[in-house]
Amino acid sequence: MKAVGLIVEYNPFHNGHYYHLQTSREAADADVVICVMSGYFLQRGEPALLPRRERTEMALQGGADLVVELPYIFSSQHADWFARGAVSILDQLGAGSVCFGSEQGSIEPFLNLFDFLQARRTEYGRRIREYSSLGYSFPKAASLSFQHMAPGAHLPDLSQPNNILGYFYTKAVNELGSSMRLQTIQRMTAGYHDDQLSGTDISSATSIRRRLIGNTGAPETVEQALPAPAYRYLRNYLHSGSPLFEWEKYFPYLQAKALTLPASWLEEIYEAEEGLHHRMQSVMKRNSTFHEFMHAFKTKRYTWTRLQRFATHVLTGTSKAEAAAAMETGQADHIRLLGMNKTGQAYLNTIKKQVDIPMISSLPKDKTPQQKLDEKAAAAYYLPLPPDERRDRWRSEYEQPPLFFES
Amino acid sequence: MKAVGLIVEYNPFHNGHYYHLQTSREAADADVVICVMSGYFLQRGEPALLPRRERTEMALQGGADLVVELPYIFSSQHADWFARGAVSILDQLGAGSVCFGSEQGSIEPFLNLFDFLQARRTEYGRRIREYSSLGYSFPKAASLSFQHMAPGAHLPDLSQPNNILGYFYTKAVNELGSSMRLQTIQRMTAGYHDDQLSGTDISSATSIRRRLIGNTGAPETVEQALPAPAYRYLRNYLHSGSPLFEWEKYFPYLQAKALTLPASWLEEIYEAEEGLHHRMQSVMKRNSTFHEFMHAFKTKRYTWTRLQRFATHVLTGTSKAEAAAAMETGQADHIRLLGMNKTGQAYLNTIKKQVDIPMISSLPKDKTPQQKLDEKAAAAYYLPLPPDERRDRWRSEYEQPPLFFES
Repeated sequence: MKAVGLIVEYNPFHNGHYYHLQTSREAADADVVICVMSGYFLQRGEPALLPRRERTEMALQGGADLVVELPYIFSSQHADWFARGAVSILDQLGAGSVCFGSEQGSIEPFLNLFDFLQARRTEYGRRIREYSSLGYSFPKAASLSFQHMAPGAHLPDLSQPNNILGYFYTKAVNELGSSMRLQTIQRMTAGYHDDQLSGTDISSATSIRRRLIGNTGAPETVEQALPAPAYRYLRNYLHSGSPLFEWEKYFPYLQAKALTLPASWLEEIYEAEEGLHHRMQSVMKRNSTFHEFMHAFKTKRYTWTRLQRFATHVLTGTSKAEAAAAMETGQADHIRLLGMNKTGQAYLNTIKKQVDIPMISSLPKDKTPQQKLDEKAAAAYYLPLPPDERRDRWRSEYEQPPLFFES
Repeated sequence: MKAVGLIVEYNPFHNGHYYHLQTSREAADADVVICVMSGYFLQRGEPALLPRRERTEMALQGGADLVVELPYIFSSQHADWFARGAVSILDQLGAGSVCFGSEQGSIEPFLNLFDFLQARRTEYGRRIREYSSLGYSFPKAASLSFQHMAPGAHLPDLSQPNNILGYFYTKAVNELGSSMRLQTIQRMTAGYHDDQLSGTDISSATSIRRRLIGNTGAPETVEQALPAPAYRYLRNYLHSGSPLFEWEKYFPYLQAKALTLPASWLEEIYEAEEGLHHRMQSVMKRNSTFHEFMHAFKTKRYTWTRLQRFATHVLTGTSKAEAAAAMETGQADHIRLLGMNKTGQAYLNTIKKQVDIPMISSLPKDKTPQQKLDEKAAAAYYLPLPPDERRDRWRSEYEQPPLFFES
């Protein structure tokens, strides 16, 4: 069986994701679509709007055959480690290719870029440091370095977020020595039609989240942007009174952490550097919403995303030592199965003997460094729930089997 | 002006407190009653039911002339340090005597006990350790040691909680070399009449809290147990929608802390010992209320109070290193003025030049070790409030002048 791997957040699953999933299956001529999906906290340093279980269900409805988790240490990371974790899992699962969406839309520029940087890594590193020392954020410094080093070269535009990720997928496949083929699909921006879609609205996940959070309990505002099954699922979820998980609901917990941990401990949280922890403590008290706090916390030197990731690590209590332990092998130390259909199950049976890291469905008693962080991320993630539901969700981390989807 | 010092929690101010306050003034023939009052978290390891400001108001209404704060490092401590901190403040403020309520009711047995233990400290320490190693809690081990060492001696019964505190007040006055006279008043249990009292109900603060928490918004259930002004004040507080601060409201924050801090950090929380932090982490997830959690956490080896204090230190993020720094001098490192009337103000003017630790009304920018912990305790204490009120209460730590009471 031939498998294609997708690296996803599905926050939430929308028309663009559906398009990417179906088109990837065709482009790779694959029997099986494997999704590596971020669990609790995402690359932008945000909680996932819906729990993992619900997002898994939506992915399976949308055509995924097998959904596995990207552990916390990779899911809430800059693009380099995010890509490395996800690619290592797809490689372990025997995917023949990894197919990512990009603004670029063709794969050669990514391969060119990788070769270019292999050859001129030292100079690139030096330029990044120079621009950073002038106060530019990392993405801006990277973009300026390229403009300087290779003006006019046929390279992907790295000011586009999905091109950046695409580059790091390319890098990870090469550095991990994977035989997976790299493919990319141009991100759909408008005009795609399919009868499974509720409408032709191709909205970004960001704008969908904004509409949902701003109109809690009124999913109609996003109906046009989601495939019909995903929309029905989301509507039922909200109508049953289940919450959207978003930063504002975590803000009191972030305050509790940041204002009561000894400063010397806060400094030992992963991604604390250059006095960020002092800055966090000093602005934390004066604001009554997360949004206000972030505006006060933001500096030119760090991206919003970078600062949100630091806030996430404070919330989940991820120390530098724990992060270092979880990153030590440079790859996923386990694969957690979240959901599958019959095709995914059959595929798993064909490859499971070749997977040489543990495949689990719920957390074991003795945890790997990455599982320890996943356990803490789950503890933090479910805090906004009422006490009994919180306890039940925590328990399911240890007991719940993967979701089986009868298509 | 002659001052008598009282060491109080007023959680909340009730008929028994009123009796103690008035009787102490008479017994000491004092012009001024000074109350050293615990701030946010109390000796039993609980949040104060009402904020400091409100309890100060009730104390002034009840006859106190000057109310100052017992810093967190002493207020949430076993009796030895609790007494030491409070006595050091009264001594600094020039009180002529300290007058405590006790089950015993006369002072000689306390003085006898102090002399007895001075003489036989080594044997006493050995016996305590022996009984402790058999699994007895500290109070029980102390009581058994006395029964063994001095059967029938005229010593206070140390199975009574206020006698234990009385002993430690006696010890602190002696060890600090204070010239304050020690006095005690038998705790009133029934039958005292005064027209300022709403009724003749002499209830313990514990039973009053239980009735209030069990019937939030229905202060009538405690009307008979409070002086009329205190009752009116409490009723207005509750009718305006202000909350009672009790452990259940902090439980999600305790869970957040205990389940996301690295185990090696939780072990560095003050009063973590012998694997208590592991035990806390392992039972924390399985319970959905603080009360359930405490039942699961409790062992024969530790008192409920001792375990609640540990939970309090987790909530406030008080590390062993911070606690050690705050306890280094063995005395209060500042005096925080919470409230006064004209008499209290006049008294302050007569003694302020002799006070050789800083007297403050709000927190300064550069904080002493004890003030650092008070700041964190305030951050934790106000967490259950809605965001804007929380922010305003935090701000008042830095800006609010002491309460002035026009009697």
